[in-house]
Amino acid sequence: MEVKVLTIKEDVLGANEEKAKANRELLDKNHNLLINIMSSPGAGKTTLIMQTIKNFKDKTRIAVIEGDIASTIDADKISRQDIPVIQINTAGACHLDANMIGKAMDKLPLEQTDLVIIENVGNLVCPAEFALGAHKTIMLLSVPEGDDKPHKYPLMFTESDVVLVNKTDVLPYFDFDVKAFSDAVSGLNPSAKIFPVSAKTGEGLELWFSWLEDALK
Amino acid sequence: MEVKVLTIKEDVLGANEEKAKANRELLDKNHNLLINIMSSPGAGKTTLIMQTIKNFKDKTRIAVIEGDIASTIDADKISRQDIPVIQINTAGACHLDANMIGKAMDKLPLEQTDLVIIENVGNLVCPAEFALGAHKTIMLLSVPEGDDKPHKYPLMFTESDVVLVNKTDVLPYFDFDVKAFSDAVSGLNPSAKIFPVSAKTGEGLELWFSWLEDALK
Repeated sequence: MEVKVLTIKEDVLGANEEKAKANRELLDKNHNLLINIMSSPGAGKTTLIMQTIKNFKDKTRIAVIEGDIASTIDADKISRQDIPVIQINTAGACHLDANMIGKAMDKLPLEQTDLVIIENVGNLVCPAEFALGAHKTIMLLSVPEGDDKPHKYPLMFTESDVVLVNKTDVLPYFDFDVKAFSDAVSGLNPSAKIFPVSAKTGEGLELWFSWLEDALK
Repeated sequence: MEVKVLTIKEDVLGANEEKAKANRELLDKNHNLLINIMSSPGAGKTTLIMQTIKNFKDKTRIAVIEGDIASTIDADKISRQDIPVIQINTAGACHLDANMIGKAMDKLPLEQTDLVIIENVGNLVCPAEFALGAHKTIMLLSVPEGDDKPHKYPLMFTESDVVLVNKTDVLPYFDFDVKAFSDAVSGLNPSAKIFPVSAKTGEGLELWFSWLEDALK
């Protein structure tokens, strides 16, 4: 049967660009690199951050800002690594904004920090709409979510500097075409780096670590 | 290290309750059951709907409303079942609202329909905030997303009549505790029905079909 298409546009709120710019100025003054990590719920952001902390903590001073609607589950995990961590609870909001990040930065020892990692609220839509002041934007798409996601959620793929294809350890159990996925991402965003990884097993993470090491220079 | 918590509240927009009420009145006049299916991206909503159509189409007249930010991938799949389907493209918005559903309903043959199925935008946050006029609210949480999601995204679990734990076929490859998950859901929402299923293999779907059959009476 014929598919009927209704295109209904919602006005997207918020000019938080000014606050994002102020965040960036403060970061640059303190020589901090800020990266914003986004994905669907459960795609593996926290596991990636834990692996990144383990790899870099001897040479790089790291702080983490955790965004969740509720709970401190992820921040509790991070804090066990003896890393400064701020949990933002958004009380229902589907994304972090520049004002929230500014408030979190106020509580971090920025002068004694090299790398600030934001774990955004798990959501493949809203977080991509709000500038935070980050120098680099990272997204994870996990294998179980399916390779059609760039077509359905284009903005996040367009906005990201790095796209990590996470959970490659379960590729045998899902119908996920890495080549088709990479082609779709490159179609939207030709300069995006695409790294297939398993944050759980560590497979492929050396490419991510090497990219981040360059970004920190 | 100590976890610092900032609670930052955003004003949530929109009183679309009135329009949702009008949708409901029109549905009741036409003896339609409207169900709203929500989940994270890639949790298996379309596969569940396809299985539901196959099971019910000989005895029940079904129509489908597909919500996506972009693309008609899912609606194209559904339309091959010779079922009336409307694709709503939200042009960036992270959820469907009652006004969009009203416009879609205007294009459906409601007088010749028993069951209207909404596939909401893949998002574990925003869709739960917007009443659509649905009689029943269904959510899927897929095994790869992890069993901690009720703590992080409580609203959707609180709002749902049925919680389907999907992708049970990959339980051996993930660290997902069905009992801990079910306990967390019941803690938020004691009356929610929880059905572990694999929409892909069909395992466990008889409980869902039986529940839906009762709801259609």
